Amino acid sequence: MAIEKINISGKLSLFDDYWNPRIVGELNGQHVKLVKFKGEFVWHKHENEDEMFLVVKGEFKMELRQKTIEIKEGELIIIPRGTEHRPTATEEVHIMLFEPMSTLNTGNVQDKLTKNMLEKI
Amino acid sequence: MAIEKINISGKLSLFDDYWNPRIVGELNGQHVKLVKFKGEFVWHKHENEDEMFLVVKGEFKMELRQKTIEIKEGELIIIPRGTEHRPTATEEVHIMLFEPMSTLNTGNVQDKLTKNMLEKI
Repeated sequence: MAIEKINISGKLSLFDDYWNPRIVGELNGQHVKLVKFKGEFVWHKHENEDEMFLVVKGEFKMELRQKTIEIKEGELIIIPRGTEHRPTATEEVHIMLFEPMSTLNTGNVQDKLTKNMLEKI
Repeated sequence: MAIEKINISGKLSLFDDYWNPRIVGELNGQHVKLVKFKGEFVWHKHENEDEMFLVVKGEFKMELRQKTIEIKEGELIIIPRGTEHRPTATEEVHIMLFEPMSTLNTGNVQDKLTKNMLEKI
């Protein structure tokens, strides 16, 4: 496969829906995904996967059971496996995710927001 | 361990040297690193590790044996395992790296630029 660079904002301009991660890269059994959030997600956890959220544009809140952390543009957070969490965003926020290829967006929870198949863009 | 967010530019302000990646996060056996490049690195490859370079600030060139790719702010490139590559930067560039914890910066090459131990910041 040809090696090409990926322009993050260019890829983000290809979709408009929320809570529907797109795959933009793959390495070492991990996926690099881009996603737009707005509103409240569902409480969930991933039993076997750590998950990284990096804010490309905007800001959001990561709710944990013990505290809520505001993540702004140019900041990232790693949620360790087994940790219940819920992202919420008052305004649209653009996020890069880095997580194992096996990761389901709603983790241990089956919800209307669950995406079993992700598009590669 | 407490879950805390990481501010990328704040971490980058903690060091000034080139070609010396710092570890800022760990997930799923992978490291998230920050590094500043300026000048020419050494040609090398990683036999068993894919490597991702994301430009946080500035730009650089990734030389491959077949072509050279310019990577600008907000762009990323994934170099598959086994692919010879050499990053070069005319001006200082700030990069985020994602790669397995086992990854040595100069891969299969032992060089004065080799860093066997990386600092966590």
